[in-house]
Amino acid sequence: MDATQSYLDEIRWNADGLVPAIAQEATTGRVLTLAWMNREAMARTQASGFAHYWSRSRRKLWKKGESSGHVQAVREIRLDCDQDAVLLVVDQAGGIACHTGHARCFFRRLDQGQWRDVEPVMKPPEAIYGEGQPR
Amino acid sequence: MDATQSYLDEIRWNADGLVPAIAQEATTGRVLTLAWMNREAMARTQASGFAHYWSRSRRKLWKKGESSGHVQAVREIRLDCDQDAVLLVVDQAGGIACHTGHARCFFRRLDQGQWRDVEPVMKPPEAIYGEGQPR
Repeated sequence: MDATQSYLDEIRWNADGLVPAIAQEATTGRVLTLAWMNREAMARTQASGFAHYWSRSRRKLWKKGESSGHVQAVREIRLDCDQDAVLLVVDQAGGIACHTGHARCFFRRLDQGQWRDVEPVMKPPEAIYGEGQPR
Repeated sequence: MDATQSYLDEIRWNADGLVPAIAQEATTGRVLTLAWMNREAMARTQASGFAHYWSRSRRKLWKKGESSGHVQAVREIRLDCDQDAVLLVVDQAGGIACHTGHARCFFRRLDQGQWRDVEPVMKPPEAIYGEGQPR
């Protein structure tokens, strides 16, 4: 891993040193997650071929799936026109991207002014993480 | 438009009162854009059926396509598990989402440590906006 590479300098990191990263499932086209990357997360993603993010709540670098096994193998890394958003095209291990056990995080749809869960829980979180485990 | 509706209170707006909003093309599954919404942008999107965003650079509410005609008709509005990211499933007028004239903003791919343009310009910006017009 080399965090000094110039492609990292071309990303417009925000004031907190982060950039939003969308993960899209390669096979289905589903948008799975929106997470955040810092410079090291991007460098590790590029070097390892697996998605790494920065957890804003836990304030730590995090390999997606490190607890759950639901890793994201990265096929493509893309950058947008103004260089402040990233798209990862991934293969989602286990078919579950969300810590809630849904296939993806975007399982709520606005319907007549209310957010409704419109996708099933594939596996209960307790079965993914074990009781009392960090997620 | 009613900006007092409770579904707006369930969104976790950031310190600037914004939330990132991904637009995905319904017919192709392509991730087109990542933009930002404030409360009014979301309320207008919901009420009108067309994507509205908050421009952080221009500091103004903006109907996507108001200059270019490349509006986004919204089929679905989705919210993620921790309520701080939005996904719009849209029909993209003109097949062009990006102000650069690319079909979408994510036209750069990381390839051997370099960002490379891997998608064509569908229409030059001058032809979209006219010379000297705001975009």
